[in-house]
Amino acid sequence: MVSAATTYWLERAWTGDRMVDGVAVSVEDGRFVRVEQALPGDAERLAGLTVPGFANCHSHAFHRALRGRTQAGRGSFWTWREQMYAVAGRLTPDSYYALARATYREMVSAGYTGVGEFHYLHHQGDGTAYDDPNQMAKALLAAAHDAGIRITLLDTCYLAAGFGRPPEGVQVRYSDGDAEAWAKRVEGLASGDGRLVGAAVHSVRAVPREQIPTVVEWADVRRAPLHVHLSEQTAENDACIAAHGATPSELLADAGAWGPRASAVHATHLTEGDIALLGASGTHACLCPTTERDLGDGIGPSRELHTAGSPLTLGSDSQAVVDPFEEMRAVELDERLATRERGHWAAEELIAAGTVQGHRSLGFPDAGRIEVGARADLVVLDTATATMAGTGGDVASVVFAATAADVRRVMVDGRWVVGVEDRAQVGAELRAAIERIWEG
Amino acid sequence: MVSAATTYWLERAWTGDRMVDGVAVSVEDGRFVRVEQALPGDAERLAGLTVPGFANCHSHAFHRALRGRTQAGRGSFWTWREQMYAVAGRLTPDSYYALARATYREMVSAGYTGVGEFHYLHHQGDGTAYDDPNQMAKALLAAAHDAGIRITLLDTCYLAAGFGRPPEGVQVRYSDGDAEAWAKRVEGLASGDGRLVGAAVHSVRAVPREQIPTVVEWADVRRAPLHVHLSEQTAENDACIAAHGATPSELLADAGAWGPRASAVHATHLTEGDIALLGASGTHACLCPTTERDLGDGIGPSRELHTAGSPLTLGSDSQAVVDPFEEMRAVELDERLATRERGHWAAEELIAAGTVQGHRSLGFPDAGRIEVGARADLVVLDTATATMAGTGGDVASVVFAATAADVRRVMVDGRWVVGVEDRAQVGAELRAAIERIWEG
Repeated sequence: MVSAATTYWLERAWTGDRMVDGVAVSVEDGRFVRVEQALPGDAERLAGLTVPGFANCHSHAFHRALRGRTQAGRGSFWTWREQMYAVAGRLTPDSYYALARATYREMVSAGYTGVGEFHYLHHQGDGTAYDDPNQMAKALLAAAHDAGIRITLLDTCYLAAGFGRPPEGVQVRYSDGDAEAWAKRVEGLASGDGRLVGAAVHSVRAVPREQIPTVVEWADVRRAPLHVHLSEQTAENDACIAAHGATPSELLADAGAWGPRASAVHATHLTEGDIALLGASGTHACLCPTTERDLGDGIGPSRELHTAGSPLTLGSDSQAVVDPFEEMRAVELDERLATRERGHWAAEELIAAGTVQGHRSLGFPDAGRIEVGARADLVVLDTATATMAGTGGDVASVVFAATAADVRRVMVDGRWVVGVEDRAQVGAELRAAIERIWEG
Repeated sequence: MVSAATTYWLERAWTGDRMVDGVAVSVEDGRFVRVEQALPGDAERLAGLTVPGFANCHSHAFHRALRGRTQAGRGSFWTWREQMYAVAGRLTPDSYYALARATYREMVSAGYTGVGEFHYLHHQGDGTAYDDPNQMAKALLAAAHDAGIRITLLDTCYLAAGFGRPPEGVQVRYSDGDAEAWAKRVEGLASGDGRLVGAAVHSVRAVPREQIPTVVEWADVRRAPLHVHLSEQTAENDACIAAHGATPSELLADAGAWGPRASAVHATHLTEGDIALLGASGTHACLCPTTERDLGDGIGPSRELHTAGSPLTLGSDSQAVVDPFEEMRAVELDERLATRERGHWAAEELIAAGTVQGHRSLGFPDAGRIEVGARADLVVLDTATATMAGTGGDVASVVFAATAADVRRVMVDGRWVVGVEDRAQVGAELRAAIERIWEG
């Protein structure tokens, strides 16, 4: 019987553990069935440097509409949020679908093969449910399907404007009333091929303490991912301590939220005790460095969290930047600015955060490596661009030099989503000039 | 008599003062001879968003060979410097020319139309002069010419390994022995069309206090730019105070270095007195944010310097990143990380820093604006890319969303250096989805 597998020959590849020159990979039913160093033979040849697909673990697709439009004047996270709410108020299921599909296409073209969509825009403008109460969520699932990206829909419980305050303004679109009603609605959503339904607690501001366990239990029963915005702003910490005498990390620990299926998003302003709680539970720390820069959130304790036991993951969040390479290196570069030392994170650790750790946190532990049995995601980088030429071809060149614009082809679950484009620029000359120096 | 001017019609342009839709520009002998809002007529049409050319005010061209190759292990500025010195030891006039030409081509393709090359790699490996003692400088001038970028060659005086220490190792290639010999050698270099010879004091570490006035005087007599690496590291400040009882800013003020033709490069770790000295003199503050991130230098007091009277300029320095847009926004984004507030720098101020202020600091006060009489530099951005689509078309979209990969055509002094490339991606769909929300 003839195999239906398709074989490609990768000129050079980072498999997840090591860099290999000349790798034959065969793909069948969306998975790698062969990965081995080999001669090209008659396989289709993929030039450049191929890496596993990246996981975008924290996305608000609709924020893409804000890029370039929120930079006027002074302000803080909170004034930015007013502008974001203005967009949230305008979206319909149709326009949400179109915006999300386009945004997910941008993500795939940048090398992301999976997205965790932190979705709370559930209802109509007046707060009443659509005829199908999951119409907005289904718009996102359809957008991801049509853009060819895997999605973990983190259906988000959002019930309050703040500690002891009912939803205000556009927030009526977010609220299901209580966590039971949230859980009941989410029952109408089904996981499927390349599509997983998970849960999110928006934040300790937006979900009253006594409601949180319902969401946690929903996720526990289904072994589903559970994400939470955590301590992005010191104001949230202050209000939480004032209301409950506990930090947000402590409050969520009491509710049973933390563990290996959980992701603490941002995790910027933590106490040593918070870090210990998150680390000991194996909760993922999902940093969104380009957004945290843009919003002036601060620099989260990524290395301390890693040391304590929290695997790092990454998200594009506000879509100010959609570039997994920029996201990876920003973790290290921001640490350098904060400490005046280099070398907090090795490139190998950052690409693991961007790939395998991220996919695992989204409920796809079988993605993010080029190995037999894994989901067949491939990101082919053009190493001949002005940006990449001469950078040496080590994993550090991927993490510290590549940009989204260097991505040429992207495969998700065995299917090519982004095709070949020839954008070769001044790179050939750069490469020649630099190789002459290093090898001369 | 028929005019030899060529006319282009810009769909949308930032002239330096305002955003205008539909601008006819005529170019003759390398300058704009007409700039006015008009209908397209039969002029060649430049779609997208056109901005003035950017000035890269601090470049070490040869550092481009290090991109992606210096990220292993821990370390600091000083361990990075060891790797940089390894490259410096290998360069010949031929390989320096080839590397610089390629690097300058990358710069032009990213939107830079002028470069300030801080050049100190003067002599042979054993410290003896080449037959033509300016052979290395001439390699750089030829490289810039052949790449089509204007150059201000900041010929750099570098005499010592540190306070009271003679040159060590590869530094013998840098040293002319004393400032008089430096000045004599530099006399062999001539300014010309699109080429200006200026001076640099490498740093207070590398030029003994009593030698600095000779370099300052050389620049004063010629009304030439004078650049200095200033207080990039606290170790330099400490050593300077220990040796001389003065900060580097104070020492250089005593030597008469500061003034409107001067640029203080980095200016990271300054006292309030230093900021007052630099500002009162009108000295430019040349920040290199992407390099300062990479090296863990810290975040310089850009806004305080601006307020004190020092115009901001920008440089790509180590070539870890060659992207004028990233450089502009990094100034603001790093301030946000440091302060947790947004809005330190307006987009209009940042693009002025990246263009007109930069060119002025390099001795080209007639560049950086699209106006009659100015040097005809144009950078045409594709606003249909995945990165730029839907960003609104204001100057903030240029500063906060554009990347080097969005640049399609670049004109320097009336000549097209970078041509049209069609890299349209998923942008059309993004734009449609977003405009529907904002305009619907």
